[in-house]
Amino acid sequence: MVRLEFRAHYRRRLDKTIDFRHTEIMLERDIFANLSPLDHRYSLSETAVFDALSARLSEQAAVRSCARCEIALIKAHLAERDSLTPVLEKALDTVGENLSPETVYTEEETTKHFIRALVNSLIRLVPPETAPLVHLGATSADILDTAFSLRLRDAVCEVILPIIRSVERRLCGIAEREASTPQVGRTHGQHALPITFGFTMAEYVSRLGKCIPAIEGRVGDLRGKLSGPVGAYNGLAIIVRDPAAFEARYLGYLRLEASEYSTQLVEPEYVLRLLLEINAAFGVLANLADDLRNLQRSEISEVFEQFQSGQVGSSAMPQKRNPWNSEHVKSLWKAFAPRVVTFFMDQISEHQRDLTNSASQRFVADYLAGFAFAAARMESILAGLHADREGMARNLASAGGKIPGGILAEPAYLLLAESGSSDAHERIRRITLDAESAGISFYQALRRQPEVLASITARLRALGIADADGFFAHPERYSGLAEQKARDLARKYSGTCGGHVGKPG
Amino acid sequence: MVRLEFRAHYRRRLDKTIDFRHTEIMLERDIFANLSPLDHRYSLSETAVFDALSARLSEQAAVRSCARCEIALIKAHLAERDSLTPVLEKALDTVGENLSPETVYTEEETTKHFIRALVNSLIRLVPPETAPLVHLGATSADILDTAFSLRLRDAVCEVILPIIRSVERRLCGIAEREASTPQVGRTHGQHALPITFGFTMAEYVSRLGKCIPAIEGRVGDLRGKLSGPVGAYNGLAIIVRDPAAFEARYLGYLRLEASEYSTQLVEPEYVLRLLLEINAAFGVLANLADDLRNLQRSEISEVFEQFQSGQVGSSAMPQKRNPWNSEHVKSLWKAFAPRVVTFFMDQISEHQRDLTNSASQRFVADYLAGFAFAAARMESILAGLHADREGMARNLASAGGKIPGGILAEPAYLLLAESGSSDAHERIRRITLDAESAGISFYQALRRQPEVLASITARLRALGIADADGFFAHPERYSGLAEQKARDLARKYSGTCGGHVGKPG
Amino acid sequence: MVRLEFRAHYRRRLDKTIDFRHTEIMLERDIFANLSPLDHRYSLSETAVFDALSARLSEQAAVRSCARCEIALIKAHLAERDSLTPVLEKALDTVGENLSPETVYTEEETTKHFIRALVNSLIRLVPPETAPLVHLGATSADILDTAFSLRLRDAVCEVILPIIRSVERRLCGIAEREASTPQVGRTHGQHALPITFGFTMAEYVSRLGKCIPAIEGRVGDLRGKLSGPVGAYNGLAIIVRDPAAFEARYLGYLRLEASEYSTQLVEPEYVLRLLLEINAAFGVLANLADDLRNLQRSEISEVFEQFQSGQVGSSAMPQKRNPWNSEHVKSLWKAFAPRVVTFFMDQISEHQRDLTNSASQRFVADYLAGFAFAAARMESILAGLHADREGMARNLASAGGKIPGGILAEPAYLLLAESGSSDAHERIRRITLDAESAGISFYQALRRQPEVLASITARLRALGIADADGFFAHPERYSGLAEQKARDLARKYSGTCGGHVGKPG
Amino acid sequence: MVRLEFRAHYRRRLDKTIDFRHTEIMLERDIFANLSPLDHRYSLSETAVFDALSARLSEQAAVRSCARCEIALIKAHLAERDSLTPVLEKALDTVGENLSPETVYTEEETTKHFIRALVNSLIRLVPPETAPLVHLGATSADILDTAFSLRLRDAVCEVILPIIRSVERRLCGIAEREASTPQVGRTHGQHALPITFGFTMAEYVSRLGKCIPAIEGRVGDLRGKLSGPVGAYNGLAIIVRDPAAFEARYLGYLRLEASEYSTQLVEPEYVLRLLLEINAAFGVLANLADDLRNLQRSEISEVFEQFQSGQVGSSAMPQKRNPWNSEHVKSLWKAFAPRVVTFFMDQISEHQRDLTNSASQRFVADYLAGFAFAAARMESILAGLHADREGMARNLASAGGKIPGGILAEPAYLLLAESGSSDAHERIRRITLDAESAGISFYQALRRQPEVLASITARLRALGIADADGFFAHPERYSGLAEQKARDLARKYSGTCGGHVGKPG
Repeated sequence: MVRLEFRAHYRRRLDKTIDFRHTEIMLERDIFANLSPLDHRYSLSETAVFDALSARLSEQAAVRSCARCEIALIKAHLAERDSLTPVLEKALDTVGENLSPETVYTEEETTKHFIRALVNSLIRLVPPETAPLVHLGATSADILDTAFSLRLRDAVCEVILPIIRSVERRLCGIAEREASTPQVGRTHGQHALPITFGFTMAEYVSRLGKCIPAIEGRVGDLRGKLSGPVGAYNGLAIIVRDPAAFEARYLGYLRLEASEYSTQLVEPEYVLRLLLEINAAFGVLANLADDLRNLQRSEISEVFEQFQSGQVGSSAMPQKRNPWNSEHVKSLWKAFAPRVVTFFMDQISEHQRDLTNSASQRFVADYLAGFAFAAARMESILAGLHADREGMARNLASAGGKIPGGILAEPAYLLLAESGSSDAHERIRRITLDAESAGISFYQALRRQPEVLASITARLRALGIADADGFFAHPERYSGLAEQKARDLARKYSGTCGGHVGKPG
Repeated sequence: MVRLEFRAHYRRRLDKTIDFRHTEIMLERDIFANLSPLDHRYSLSETAVFDALSARLSEQAAVRSCARCEIALIKAHLAERDSLTPVLEKALDTVGENLSPETVYTEEETTKHFIRALVNSLIRLVPPETAPLVHLGATSADILDTAFSLRLRDAVCEVILPIIRSVERRLCGIAEREASTPQVGRTHGQHALPITFGFTMAEYVSRLGKCIPAIEGRVGDLRGKLSGPVGAYNGLAIIVRDPAAFEARYLGYLRLEASEYSTQLVEPEYVLRLLLEINAAFGVLANLADDLRNLQRSEISEVFEQFQSGQVGSSAMPQKRNPWNSEHVKSLWKAFAPRVVTFFMDQISEHQRDLTNSASQRFVADYLAGFAFAAARMESILAGLHADREGMARNLASAGGKIPGGILAEPAYLLLAESGSSDAHERIRRITLDAESAGISFYQALRRQPEVLASITARLRALGIADADGFFAHPERYSGLAEQKARDLARKYSGTCGGHVGKPG
Repeated sequence: MVRLEFRAHYRRRLDKTIDFRHTEIMLERDIFANLSPLDHRYSLSETAVFDALSARLSEQAAVRSCARCEIALIKAHLAERDSLTPVLEKALDTVGENLSPETVYTEEETTKHFIRALVNSLIRLVPPETAPLVHLGATSADILDTAFSLRLRDAVCEVILPIIRSVERRLCGIAEREASTPQVGRTHGQHALPITFGFTMAEYVSRLGKCIPAIEGRVGDLRGKLSGPVGAYNGLAIIVRDPAAFEARYLGYLRLEASEYSTQLVEPEYVLRLLLEINAAFGVLANLADDLRNLQRSEISEVFEQFQSGQVGSSAMPQKRNPWNSEHVKSLWKAFAPRVVTFFMDQISEHQRDLTNSASQRFVADYLAGFAFAAARMESILAGLHADREGMARNLASAGGKIPGGILAEPAYLLLAESGSSDAHERIRRITLDAESAGISFYQALRRQPEVLASITARLRALGIADADGFFAHPERYSGLAEQKARDLARKYSGTCGGHVGKPG
Repeated sequence: MVRLEFRAHYRRRLDKTIDFRHTEIMLERDIFANLSPLDHRYSLSETAVFDALSARLSEQAAVRSCARCEIALIKAHLAERDSLTPVLEKALDTVGENLSPETVYTEEETTKHFIRALVNSLIRLVPPETAPLVHLGATSADILDTAFSLRLRDAVCEVILPIIRSVERRLCGIAEREASTPQVGRTHGQHALPITFGFTMAEYVSRLGKCIPAIEGRVGDLRGKLSGPVGAYNGLAIIVRDPAAFEARYLGYLRLEASEYSTQLVEPEYVLRLLLEINAAFGVLANLADDLRNLQRSEISEVFEQFQSGQVGSSAMPQKRNPWNSEHVKSLWKAFAPRVVTFFMDQISEHQRDLTNSASQRFVADYLAGFAFAAARMESILAGLHADREGMARNLASAGGKIPGGILAEPAYLLLAESGSSDAHERIRRITLDAESAGISFYQALRRQPEVLASITARLRALGIADADGFFAHPERYSGLAEQKARDLARKYSGTCGGHVGKPG
């Protein structure tokens, strides 16, 4: 039977370390023996991102963030007693920063209670005169929930936001660079009207650009607590003068504010709203990935992901160049975006709390890692993105379908309507049918209807376009505000995402 | 075969109306023949809510909101030409307000295109001199997406927000009323420490109280657009001087602003963020419903939903009183909360748009209705909620389990620790074991250890509690800041949710 | 305030009917005032499907299915007493089939309990001697849960299965018809190797073909119950000799079997598994819709949805033909597929049941309708699907990218490897590079390496292909078993889906 | 900037190993530096389960399963040529079983293509005469998709099924042991009618008991493929006589059958259906966990999870015993059950495949681990589950609420109705009101209505119950078929889950 011996097994491994306070236990494992792709494949393909996340979201980081909270509590007690000296403060910080998860896990084998294990470990390690203050007046959740906010804040501020700001800078750079590159706009997968590729990318400049301050706002509003097992400050009220002020002092050492109300837990919506904003940003990246995937289709071929020399496109078909990085981003979105359902489920906790959010909340670390890996991949796609201007021109040129220049039937209809014709739409539609049956271009067919053409050229002239021939020969000129909008948004957002366009670092 | 004849069928029904401009077609159906519970059962059990929603979210409302947008566009053109007279404006508004969906649907049978059908209908109905301006410079989505924002705004501002403000007022009323009603706090379903029932309800005062301004903020940031089929203002740029200013003028008549960027569609995140906030509020209601359900368990019996006389509790067991309203709220949450996955999926639209968000977005109306029904039900639960103070007192009195007064072991430990004892936790734990084996109360066992008791009474005295006997005889006094917190939050939020406590109207 | 008056409102509407037993109340509503798109827009665009679903899943159907169960129970009691005469049986059936929901709803106003209202209504309507047997020994859920299975069975067997069998027949028809139509296969959106369009469609023949018997299996395993309020047959055991046999008799009249175990409810997994199979079929339809959408892209243009004359493609761009039916199917999938999360949530019911699955389960009717509408739409897409063989040929011809005939580099590599070359992949890759730099076709470059060519032609000859020139000039010949597989699957599944290919009816 | 150097970093780590073919690279990492709780906390708390899963689902297992497939392909080629000797076969198997992921990952640094890296590695390691056969005729997905089925099969058959069979045996054991332990049945959280605790547990015996063969069926229907890049056997058709037979031979070495149809991928529904069945089993476990949680509430106290001595219940409140194992199972369900949405999304792959299921599918390993951990935890809860028979008796005794014996109002009503009374329900209801107002028991009140009592006792006597006093004094006797049903189901399922009751091993 599979699980029979596991407790004994675990104990055996730990028993090797006789004196866990002096010997550092190193519980190491072959990376390839891990279960989660986050901890094997992606930890290798995106090592720097993994390392940055691990330092903030791993179990080691969890233990340390709890230790930071416990230390903050000791400091608050000392300050309350006017006994917090710089020497003591430094000694306490050192303990907090060096506590190893192995120490706590070993103790937990006995206590079966993580925070009690942490507390027991700290009691042995802190300056002896502060030992009675360890955990004094706190319940486990005062530490755990506060520490969770710390980890989220660090991971989002120091890893996730830098990556998506870098994605945003890349987007601004491309929008600016390609602001005047003609491209055909598509709706329903059908050629519609001319735009520019910079304008296409400006969509994501604008959408992701709004996600960044939204995430910043949410991450700045994460909260902690020190209100005890049921949130009413029962214990704290009999050991300190002003429990709310004491809570503020404790959290002040951690640069957090208190949850407006708490049960055993911080109100769940502070974290929820942050995760929802991240998931909104994930959706923006997924949409961008889909657009890039489709623009790389054989028949479209308007952009390409960079291909390293020596890279094999297909084990069977060497000529192929697959958009696998864009596919990867979309695939991570599929794996992680539906997990918001869990975040909403975790709003519900019975009475002053049940524990059914405990295991589920641990996987928030996975979620953030999934997002960070996707964003980092998108950053590298954009860094090497090649826009094939010839390909774009070719598709735009063929945009009328069977009627050369047919894409300009729409402005012809508008100009005719503007000139006062009440059946403009129908008259132009008939001209397109004439063009198709005669096998001529839309403009040639239009010229066969001199009075219609006259109305149109008159309107064009009123717009300052004297050259009707030129207008109908150059669909790309009919791109409205595309270029201007691309430049405006690139400028606005490259200014606000805190860095130079195209030069992350 | 099931679907063979349906086009013909539909046509036949409509053909009865020879002249659809003069005869109003009335497509009526027995309510009980509808498929969605929203349109049969819940439309009857919550008629007023249904009617209010129907006026803002039904297909009739959809047609009218599109007509309002088309009319706004005509006005913008007239204003651009300095030809918008009050008489014309009134005539146009009248057309918009009276357009019937039957007219448009009949026309759509021919055009197979909803907006073209609307346009054709309006051309016939508006003052003839304005007919050429109908839809001029717009693409369907300029109307549809803008009108969608209008409907969401109206439904949320005029139906949903009033209901949840009323829920919030009820919560404030109960929190205030029961601020000092003793109750046992529970974690993991286990008795923990004393609180008050007002404090319990204050959790929801605080959480829902923050949802309301969040929803208000999001609903005030819904957007419209008039940037054409691909978002680049291609057509508008050749018929008006300043397309962005013209778009602002159009939207100004509807009290909306323009999407910062648009493809054929408004950026999807404006609507998404509103829906996510509503789903967060839904989670708060679901948690409240779960708490109320559990407090109505036979063994707990601390609150009751109002029971109308004549109402049958069970077809087999007449003595039962089931918490079915709370169960109903939770069940609606289960039905609707997971639909956020669709909202996130709808962020993705290929290139300048695909249509795969069209059908899915229509069901946002269902979602809002599901939320509104749940919130209205919660409002009526709270209006009749009976707190059984005796039941609460009984449970609190039994909270020490096998050791009478055992719930006060925790403050005894804290006070002992405060007095300088470094093994306070262990010493008190042993006293609880003594009490259990001797079959006496915790306080009796404590009195057997005079020096421990002395330390504790000294600390109590320092806190201003001279009567140690009284402290240990009255667990309800050990409720920390529960009462104060309940009153503070009730006062704060009843002030901000715009109405009198307990008097919605 | 929005919801204040609603109870009064509802009562007022019903009060108009003085004597509800004699007057039929007709609660009618303008279709366009409904909230759910199912009950307005889609009920009109797919009238026959809607009517078929309404007859089986509406609230009227719900009332009638409950009445059928109550009647079955009376019959079982009569049979147990050997008193069930054909005359009585017929009289009872007539009551069950004609009970109007209005009658029950009016009664529910008093009882506040749906089943008690139903029971009271039936007591008045059944032959007087059977009145004491109404509901005898049953609890509400014995009726409700059994009736739910009946409705699901009817809707799935009589509406949903016929539609998807029809879709399957269409698929078989196209796979057969286009079995030998050359098309380029695509992976990652890139041209890969030749296939046929019939082979492409055979994917869906095979996948949907397996969904049909799976759904049939599940729908045949829906269950009922008559085990009382907690599932232990407490009451039944004191009024009948053999409760399990009596339950079987009751269910026998409804052609159902008993849940192996029941609490107040049937085991939830019988329904769950049916819904999951339907959702799997939904995913197959969504994938097909996506494939059809993409094959209709302007640049690909390999298939087209039928376009009715007079239909407007775009309000602004008349030349466009949008794949909006395929988009519609995908969009419905987005709206409905995530609802499986609710189905899984509804597995959980506390103890012998809580009521939190009640409202959520009502929306299973919506879900089935969403699926049925999507499937019916797919059926009509396929009925009019036009495969553009020229377009397919054009794309296949261009499949080598910059190297004409480059798509055949893969078989060249395979044949060379087969001939014993251990670096075949690398040698052929270099030939493709030569072709690209020299601007010649792959075959021309291959001919510049006579010994490589010799090895390959030798292998081709061994395969029975004497004409190497022909092989390399006709990529479409290199389509493996595509045609055969298309024909085999079309034949197999058109045989099993119970109808003639291409002739639904 | 965070991710700048990561490629270099990764390279640097690997560069330490000069000759990767001879030196085994050991990429080790501190367990606590992992991101996923699966790979840190839960890998330690459930070591044996983790190790068993790691051997079947880790990246190492992924590499080895791919190697097994490549080896099977070589064997198939050799067999096709009649050259497969036992010596060769053994040599090949040895290569497959010993290939290290480090070797492949190092090679992938150059090729950027996992399968090409695997192939290059194998070419160097297999007997030289078989080197040209490596990967011959296969595309990457022929290996990857087949290997995925292998890993799923191994993990489900060898880890997951043994665990849930063990859970099932535990359930059978408790159902048998407690078959006659009286308990009050509950609906809506309200006391309803008497049952037995064994009957309560038999619900899960029955529901989980049906999940096991369902999972066995699905896992036995996983498929592989060897049909090439687009599924049409293009390449295979020019190198082997009968491609389908050759595919069968290849898969035969792996004990798999071929997907009925394949694109580049196996039809997705084979895996989907397996995962859905597992998620259904997950829901059953979650429901059981919720029931156990609630039965451990302070006010209910009918069951307890085993508590190890020395374990700390609460860091602040030592007297508490929290149902944290049941909470843990529920919490894992919340984390993992919603991931089915991803499984349904992965049904969709454009044309002959896109790669957007690649990353998402890797997390199926996480999902299976989440389920396995939850199931293992449930197994250990059940192993130590203590049923408090006194607690159950106490709750049943108080089940009438304010009316002692009121729980028997229901059979009184049934017996009275059986005796021919047509207003039995109302008459008994009035007796309960009398009892309540008089402060007497239900039976005392009943005795005040002699003719009612007479009718009831007559019916009781007809049932063989002569002692009416005894019947009304012992509600637990009114438990219907509870005991019998518990015994029957325990017997049936303990026979089919392949082991001794209560003795897993």
